[in-house]
Amino acid sequence: MNKKRNIKLVISYDGTRYNGWQRQKTNSNTIQEKLEVMLGRLLEAEVEVTASGRTDAGVHAKAQIANFHISSGIPIDKLLAECNRYLPDDIAILEAKDVSSRFHSRLNAVGKHYRYRIWNSSIPNVFEKSYVTSYEHPLDVARMMQAAQYFIGHHDFKSFCANKRMKKSTVRNITAIEIEQDGNEITMDFFGNGFLHHMVRIMMGTLIEVGNGSRLPETIPELLLGGSREEAGFTAPAQGLILMEVFY
Amino acid sequence: MNKKRNIKLVISYDGTRYNGWQRQKTNSNTIQEKLEVMLGRLLEAEVEVTASGRTDAGVHAKAQIANFHISSGIPIDKLLAECNRYLPDDIAILEAKDVSSRFHSRLNAVGKHYRYRIWNSSIPNVFEKSYVTSYEHPLDVARMMQAAQYFIGHHDFKSFCANKRMKKSTVRNITAIEIEQDGNEITMDFFGNGFLHHMVRIMMGTLIEVGNGSRLPETIPELLLGGSREEAGFTAPAQGLILMEVFY
Repeated sequence: MNKKRNIKLVISYDGTRYNGWQRQKTNSNTIQEKLEVMLGRLLEAEVEVTASGRTDAGVHAKAQIANFHISSGIPIDKLLAECNRYLPDDIAILEAKDVSSRFHSRLNAVGKHYRYRIWNSSIPNVFEKSYVTSYEHPLDVARMMQAAQYFIGHHDFKSFCANKRMKKSTVRNITAIEIEQDGNEITMDFFGNGFLHHMVRIMMGTLIEVGNGSRLPETIPELLLGGSREEAGFTAPAQGLILMEVFY
Repeated sequence: MNKKRNIKLVISYDGTRYNGWQRQKTNSNTIQEKLEVMLGRLLEAEVEVTASGRTDAGVHAKAQIANFHISSGIPIDKLLAECNRYLPDDIAILEAKDVSSRFHSRLNAVGKHYRYRIWNSSIPNVFEKSYVTSYEHPLDVARMMQAAQYFIGHHDFKSFCANKRMKKSTVRNITAIEIEQDGNEITMDFFGNGFLHHMVRIMMGTLIEVGNGSRLPETIPELLLGGSREEAGFTAPAQGLILMEVFY
């Protein structure tokens, strides 16, 4: 019971094969479970790993942050090496560090950076296929940029939340959205203090509808005020989404 | 029988799932066969696709060049779109073009550019895992660069050829080798007038042995003169290799 060490992990994963971050009763194929089972065997103890937040099935992470408490005296470098030896090749621990007992990867997070990548061409990108969403119809990036500005600031994102029975506040602060076009690839970076369930993907689906001409940029404020999920855009596919960084 | 059109293709593929380029009697899982079967159905004719050269099982191509003859009047843009519609998502046709009947993708090729990527770290790269060869032990890139210089020029590469009963000339001209290190990634670019079976991978295995300290750079000339495959290095894994460009 004397779990005196608090270990912080920086985790990279290719979410393609997984049913998301969070452990589930009916599906063992989650990143949390892979980590907990591996750590449990390695340390011969029950380990519960907490992350900065869930990621959905198919969503990737460049640097997810997690932490767990242990009593084991295993040197931190050895812990890191053993984790990478026993984890499947689509999950990697980039860093492991002893941190203060007060550190909590979820409660202490003050912001996140998500990236969404679109491959805007009828010719597939065979090498990035798992990390981009292919969209054939040409998208007007200037128009998407214009629409994205309406998301910035404190807003009630109820229309952009998949959880219809959300009882907690659906107000979030989006601090920045950056769009870059490089050849056929469109990259959108979302920075905010937190994101609701499917929020980035619904914003992204809505922006795609703006970019393909089927929605006006000026309709975004109404969507935010209306609070109706049905009026917002489709939920863009998981595979184009990656959690880039968590801020503390 | 009136096959008056000659179509040139630029093809990109992720070789991970395939048993190489070339059609085989005992294994239908080759890139050539996937293309020929797809084109055969599309054009309702027997189509034989010739490439600039074979790539081994697991080797990728950014821009393999191929050509085939047809009598069909299908518009070239439609041909391109239909190919990309029916091919699996790890094979893409980047370009399709009507060319002179004299063009032959293999016989007219005058040079090739291959790239080999090494991920030199004990921490896996989850996103590039299919396209890099992971090598944990730190490699001395300056030493590898020094050794690589000995390969440049006209040499008999018999020691660097997997085919022991090669009856044709094993002399090739390597025009340039470039090495770049960017963080944990080491990229080696090989340019030459042609490459023997496994030649890049055996050169690469030999350079890795130089980089890890188990072989001296100055031993390369002896290896070239000796003509013995056994004295050269190991065959580096296929997954780190990609055919970048074919020159005509």
